[in-house]
Amino acid sequence: MFMHNKRLMYTVRVEAPDPMLASLMLEQFGGPDGELAAAMRYFTQGLADEDPGRKDMLIDIATEELSHLEVIGSIIAMLGKGARGRLAEGVDAGSGLLTSLTAGGESHTLSLLYGAGPALVNSAGVPWTAAYVDSRGDPTCDLRSNIAAESRAKIIYERLINVTDDTGVKDALTFLMTREIAHQKSFEKALYAIEGNFPPGKLPGNPVFTDKYFNSSQGEGDTRGPWNQGDAWEFIDEPAEMAAVDGGDGSATVKLAASDTRVLNKMLRRTASRPDIDPLTGAELGSGTEGDVGKAPLS
Amino acid sequence: MFMHNKRLMYTVRVEAPDPMLASLMLEQFGGPDGELAAAMRYFTQGLADEDPGRKDMLIDIATEELSHLEVIGSIIAMLGKGARGRLAEGVDAGSGLLTSLTAGGESHTLSLLYGAGPALVNSAGVPWTAAYVDSRGDPTCDLRSNIAAESRAKIIYERLINVTDDTGVKDALTFLMTREIAHQKSFEKALYAIEGNFPPGKLPGNPVFTDKYFNSSQGEGDTRGPWNQGDAWEFIDEPAEMAAVDGGDGSATVKLAASDTRVLNKMLRRTASRPDIDPLTGAELGSGTEGDVGKAPLS
Amino acid sequence: MFMHNKRLMYTVRVEAPDPMLASLMLEQFGGPDGELAAAMRYFTQGLADEDPGRKDMLIDIATEELSHLEVIGSIIAMLGKGARGRLAEGVDAGSGLLTSLTAGGESHTLSLLYGAGPALVNSAGVPWTAAYVDSRGDPTCDLRSNIAAESRAKIIYERLINVTDDTGVKDALTFLMTREIAHQKSFEKALYAIEGNFPPGKLPGNPVFTDKYFNSSQGEGDTRGPWNQGDAWEFIDEPAEMAAVDGGDGSATVKLAASDTRVLNKMLRRTASRPDIDPLTGAELGSGTEGDVGKAPLS
Amino acid sequence: MFMHNKRLMYTVRVEAPDPMLASLMLEQFGGPDGELAAAMRYFTQGLADEDPGRKDMLIDIATEELSHLEVIGSIIAMLGKGARGRLAEGVDAGSGLLTSLTAGGESHTLSLLYGAGPALVNSAGVPWTAAYVDSRGDPTCDLRSNIAAESRAKIIYERLINVTDDTGVKDALTFLMTREIAHQKSFEKALYAIEGNFPPGKLPGNPVFTDKYFNSSQGEGDTRGPWNQGDAWEFIDEPAEMAAVDGGDGSATVKLAASDTRVLNKMLRRTASRPDIDPLTGAELGSGTEGDVGKAPLS
Amino acid sequence: MFMHNKRLMYTVRVEAPDPMLASLMLEQFGGPDGELAAAMRYFTQGLADEDPGRKDMLIDIATEELSHLEVIGSIIAMLGKGARGRLAEGVDAGSGLLTSLTAGGESHTLSLLYGAGPALVNSAGVPWTAAYVDSRGDPTCDLRSNIAAESRAKIIYERLINVTDDTGVKDALTFLMTREIAHQKSFEKALYAIEGNFPPGKLPGNPVFTDKYFNSSQGEGDTRGPWNQGDAWEFIDEPAEMAAVDGGDGSATVKLAASDTRVLNKMLRRTASRPDIDPLTGAELGSGTEGDVGKAPLS
Amino acid sequence: MFMHNKRLMYTVRVEAPDPMLASLMLEQFGGPDGELAAAMRYFTQGLADEDPGRKDMLIDIATEELSHLEVIGSIIAMLGKGARGRLAEGVDAGSGLLTSLTAGGESHTLSLLYGAGPALVNSAGVPWTAAYVDSRGDPTCDLRSNIAAESRAKIIYERLINVTDDTGVKDALTFLMTREIAHQKSFEKALYAIEGNFPPGKLPGNPVFTDKYFNSSQGEGDTRGPWNQGDAWEFIDEPAEMAAVDGGDGSATVKLAASDTRVLNKMLRRTASRPDIDPLTGAELGSGTEGDVGKAPLS
Repeated sequence: MFMHNKRLMYTVRVEAPDPMLASLMLEQFGGPDGELAAAMRYFTQGLADEDPGRKDMLIDIATEELSHLEVIGSIIAMLGKGARGRLAEGVDAGSGLLTSLTAGGESHTLSLLYGAGPALVNSAGVPWTAAYVDSRGDPTCDLRSNIAAESRAKIIYERLINVTDDTGVKDALTFLMTREIAHQKSFEKALYAIEGNFPPGKLPGNPVFTDKYFNSSQGEGDTRGPWNQGDAWEFIDEPAEMAAVDGGDGSATVKLAASDTRVLNKMLRRTASRPDIDPLTGAELGSGTEGDVGKAPLS
Repeated sequence: MFMHNKRLMYTVRVEAPDPMLASLMLEQFGGPDGELAAAMRYFTQGLADEDPGRKDMLIDIATEELSHLEVIGSIIAMLGKGARGRLAEGVDAGSGLLTSLTAGGESHTLSLLYGAGPALVNSAGVPWTAAYVDSRGDPTCDLRSNIAAESRAKIIYERLINVTDDTGVKDALTFLMTREIAHQKSFEKALYAIEGNFPPGKLPGNPVFTDKYFNSSQGEGDTRGPWNQGDAWEFIDEPAEMAAVDGGDGSATVKLAASDTRVLNKMLRRTASRPDIDPLTGAELGSGTEGDVGKAPLS
Repeated sequence: MFMHNKRLMYTVRVEAPDPMLASLMLEQFGGPDGELAAAMRYFTQGLADEDPGRKDMLIDIATEELSHLEVIGSIIAMLGKGARGRLAEGVDAGSGLLTSLTAGGESHTLSLLYGAGPALVNSAGVPWTAAYVDSRGDPTCDLRSNIAAESRAKIIYERLINVTDDTGVKDALTFLMTREIAHQKSFEKALYAIEGNFPPGKLPGNPVFTDKYFNSSQGEGDTRGPWNQGDAWEFIDEPAEMAAVDGGDGSATVKLAASDTRVLNKMLRRTASRPDIDPLTGAELGSGTEGDVGKAPLS
Repeated sequence: MFMHNKRLMYTVRVEAPDPMLASLMLEQFGGPDGELAAAMRYFTQGLADEDPGRKDMLIDIATEELSHLEVIGSIIAMLGKGARGRLAEGVDAGSGLLTSLTAGGESHTLSLLYGAGPALVNSAGVPWTAAYVDSRGDPTCDLRSNIAAESRAKIIYERLINVTDDTGVKDALTFLMTREIAHQKSFEKALYAIEGNFPPGKLPGNPVFTDKYFNSSQGEGDTRGPWNQGDAWEFIDEPAEMAAVDGGDGSATVKLAASDTRVLNKMLRRTASRPDIDPLTGAELGSGTEGDVGKAPLS
Repeated sequence: MFMHNKRLMYTVRVEAPDPMLASLMLEQFGGPDGELAAAMRYFTQGLADEDPGRKDMLIDIATEELSHLEVIGSIIAMLGKGARGRLAEGVDAGSGLLTSLTAGGESHTLSLLYGAGPALVNSAGVPWTAAYVDSRGDPTCDLRSNIAAESRAKIIYERLINVTDDTGVKDALTFLMTREIAHQKSFEKALYAIEGNFPPGKLPGNPVFTDKYFNSSQGEGDTRGPWNQGDAWEFIDEPAEMAAVDGGDGSATVKLAASDTRVLNKMLRRTASRPDIDPLTGAELGSGTEGDVGKAPLS
Repeated sequence: MFMHNKRLMYTVRVEAPDPMLASLMLEQFGGPDGELAAAMRYFTQGLADEDPGRKDMLIDIATEELSHLEVIGSIIAMLGKGARGRLAEGVDAGSGLLTSLTAGGESHTLSLLYGAGPALVNSAGVPWTAAYVDSRGDPTCDLRSNIAAESRAKIIYERLINVTDDTGVKDALTFLMTREIAHQKSFEKALYAIEGNFPPGKLPGNPVFTDKYFNSSQGEGDTRGPWNQGDAWEFIDEPAEMAAVDGGDGSATVKLAASDTRVLNKMLRRTASRPDIDPLTGAELGSGTEGDVGKAPLS
């Protein structure tokens, strides 16, 4: 059960309204690495996890992320406060109002559609989608996904801090960015506290293919490093060895019933593109060159 | 520049057509952890990476993932081969055809819309979206995202193997699953070959908040572990200490111009929900209880 | 700031695991009228609302909806618990496992992709999108949207209750359904406590068009009722009076600079479809009837 | 069956082309509260409604909304007319053309992708989705959704009018805005002409929970009003009374078969995050602090 | 301006309710090749087209497609009529109701979420998106897109007819399928009535590359036909000739300011993955093989 | 199996970094007519095609499109190179950095979220979706879709060329544009090499409706041309002849079981909107006009 305390987790002191800056901040409210994505990633994992310690940690951090969502949302609400009033009251209606809303930038959608309030869209106005949430119900995967997600969120906060002049906004963003570091540390501890966390899951790989590195991209720039060199790796350089790696002929086959084969052959005959004629085409009609060719045998 | 060799990277020997199984396999063709997502994740990273070794590795693996996309797509094409012919030729038209296409399962969309060919949707028919691709242009983030993605892909292959009886399909899926393990190993090497890869990015966190763990979820089940216990952590248990952690009052404020304040007050007066009256509502009209209340002062 | 209490808002006592039923329950977890949509609708509104009473109510209810999200998510986790274990451990691998996961229904995506844990998708597997959240930053709109949303959520819960045999699930769903009724009542009170809440916003309509009803669909079945009959309505029945209602000629025009007109004319000439010839087409080539027509003047 | 009259429902007299303004107008063409959403909301409801009067009204208004879609689309076509020609003919090719298309604003996508014609996207370029259509097949829900939708559409038109200088555009927008008011009135009449329209649906709520208000958000700012005060409400202030409100222990349980329990225990042991060790983590490797900790018992 | 006649364009005589069949029919109501997509494709084109004949044709056919949308929607409403009543009234509540709604198939989402009424989703429940509408504002493109769209719609109707036993449904579907053929014919006439319709647009291609065919996929199965053989084609077989085809070195370069170069070098040094060391990785920690390697020079 | 050659298919020589131009180029990287859409359209078709020549061509061209994806992606990477470094290193942090990233345009999302690297979004930031891929598994449809897609891609490249000053970018774009022409030619040959490719599929249309043209949009502007005039067409002008064209009454009916009828009637009575009363509504409460009407018989 959730409870809410009206005090924010971090005090937000915005220096001045700025709808353009509000627009940028949406990235961490309704963007792919934003706080809703974080809260929902951990919350969905926590609900189903059987491990008591991990479950506790996941819900702890999910709850904190909701508090962060409130902080970033409050920043957006403050930055949009002037626009909100002017738009609602129709102050200076006309292009003057538009200019004051966009302030040289591109925040019109935030104002027009959402009334300058925090909306669950990213900085381009793309609605948040649960496609951003990559919980899979296996702890060694999910913890790795969480580590990666915290890492991405840290970088986006860093970028937002770097494009902001408002010291109050920078201060709150720095808190939020810092917490991503702390959360990553927790998730790392939980991952490595699983013994035998690699490879993920239960089925072993086929040892024939676990240590091979296929040099699929070749030419000037080919480089060796620990990711494809050393005792741990067998480096396959020869294209012919890559198709097919199982020693087969690299074809795809299926055993068909005779009736299916007959039907497929019928379909094939009906829809064949004949390679032996040079048909007149729409493109030739369209370019006025239809005189040159006909349904003649192909030279 | 890409070239294609008509031999598959792994020979596909499907035992029998099975449109329901084809439907399941879509998860790794057009699903969030499927091969297109993998190929595009590494390809977009590789194009912009300045580090020559990492760029080479990313394009190597992106290219291999395209070869995997071809393998899993070929499995789907083989499993759907019977359905494809029967549907095209209208064999046994009517509910008999429908039954043969769905085979007791739920693969009708694959057949109806895509003609039983491989489609870039997941096993529920949801179209692939680039929202699945979490490349951010920072190598310490992107490599962590890649590690997590390989880990997720490994698990999905494991689950597909576990629900399949067709030994040819299982064999090819095991190859694909194994390569996810190998790729994860490469990405791990590349990540840890970056010195100082944690925390990601360049800005340091605020040391006041880096080591705190907030026990946001409380009650029976609270657990301690390395993710919130030990020298590395300061454990905050008291809700009052969480709002606001900066020692401020936890409010959100913005310095407004006097004109903005006037406009906002005007808006507020116009749209206030008066707390002191008990208005008649639509719900009361709708439930036939409008006689009980009026626009009277609230008791 | 949010806090979490490990006790659920409502005790969940599921009778038996049932992955198919779990699949249905997703509708109120990650569906359009589900609890995440509700929580986010009120939360985004509350963050920006200037009215203290309404803001308090919105955050109160948003927080309760998060607690509901936890209840419905816990139901899903319990219903999927058997599947989760069997899938993770690969018990009875093959089509036997698949059958036990889908249990005659269509819950495979929930299991395969999400490991039988609660996922933010609806019962068809469509990921949740913030396009479901219709907060607009005007209280008379937003409260009406909330009333409608609670109303929809009530019906979906009613339908879920009606397709469920598990008495523990029914009991918890009934609680959740009831709370939608209570929330609707609160939102109605808040709406009608705004004096002059209709029409929404500030600009008055054009009185010429406020009371007209256009009978745009005509024929057997035309019906009159309070929505188009009585002193409040002017009923327009004659199509000629509907185009154009302003008394103009119903055309769309724009004043163009002469240079723009010249360019448009050039474009028009270049891309005109000539009405005076009967061209040979691709369809005629394709149907083998190209001999019948030519680029001749049209008869 | 639909027929189209070439005269618009309202004469459109745009003063001058303006691609930036065209871009804003997309909000009511392909946005969530735009005319396509309105038409489709009522059309899908009308097709299935059994009540003859309501069905007639729904199709009447759906048809009128299609006429509105044509009006707003014609405004966009006129505003984009200059851009359309210049782009097609490549006039002043280079950054000069780009500048003339965007005119200081952000309308490039409209021009580049859609050739400056009306596109079913909102003002941020997000494609229209049927996720905006909230028809549920219950009339007391659907009419409330319609009331809310008309209310939102009215506000968006008001905002568009307020950011526009073109008197021809303002005139047509005012007509469209006014009709939303008229439609809301009709839908209200139809809703309240259903006797016993609250609560929606057929199942009654559990009377224990219908009148409770949970004060889930607490602290300075807590406010009482008709939405949580008065004879109609029981106000619950004490967090302990909110978990669990049914008097149970607030846990989630499911009765598992013994075999399922065994499998789950096996899974748990395999994937447990041990709370008693302090493992070396990737973050520690990455930050160069791996020397400090080891897989030692946790202090 | 649109008008609606209460008589359908085609009389719908459904033999019996069938929610599973209703579910399939959604493909042409809210699917990618369905009637809404068709109507909106032509409507958006018609609004902006400057050519009077083409504009007339586009709006004619758009209007007819709306009438088709009504026909297919009415089929769905009839097929769902029994489910609609039983669900609304809670007849035979429990799994019995569920079974009667799904009838052995997978139509639960249609019933649960949409109350068995026509919804703008495809047969898998995916909401319609304007991403399906490919209008680009160039007539030679748009007409080709229309020809293709009609062609696809024809095939989907053919497939639906082939999986249906209900003669009333088959009859109406055959009408709808036939009209796609007629529309394709009209669009073909309009395309070929544009003189010089190929290549589309105004800019000529670079003649060096117009007639080349690159044999990018090589191996057993290489085939020649009119698409790559004959006087019209230069066949390039040699991979070395494909990179780079302009005779350059195939690199990507940009002229950077010295300051940008300095910054990039700084970034590169900070984030380089060193190829010369073999770092200990998280995967090694996770698999318990961390003893084998260290941060040692790579062998 | 795919291989990659590190040399690009076309040498990219960008004159100077320009993040705004990078943003525009996204249209052909992650937009609906971009190179990923092209590659995936042909690849999915090729995997399932039974015709050897067509399969070969589809994979040839799919592979070339991947090489194009690399070329356009490399252009974006070069144009964003300066931004990438400055953002990563936080050069000139604050609004100065923001200005340098957006350069008067709207490319902030590209920088903030994607770090100025190529992302699979269009120029408005909308993520790529497989909804753009219209492969249906019937060759006469798919080839027409391919022809249309190449045609659209050609136009988008033409527009990009027309808004670009950078001669290196124009040069590479011209190559890419030209190849769309060549591919269209190949697909046309393959389509017309299918004998009897019109109408698509196997079921014939109903000859009664194949040649009719319905003049659904009437009024000033009605035009005749080869698409609705001549021997090939029967022109239906009279609305009464369009409903219903089958000579029936234009109604929709279904044969219901008596029990279903009883349930539906019960539902109807419960939810009827009574046409004979004029109920007090929420809108009247909201506008303060509730005194004027009551639940009285409608005048």
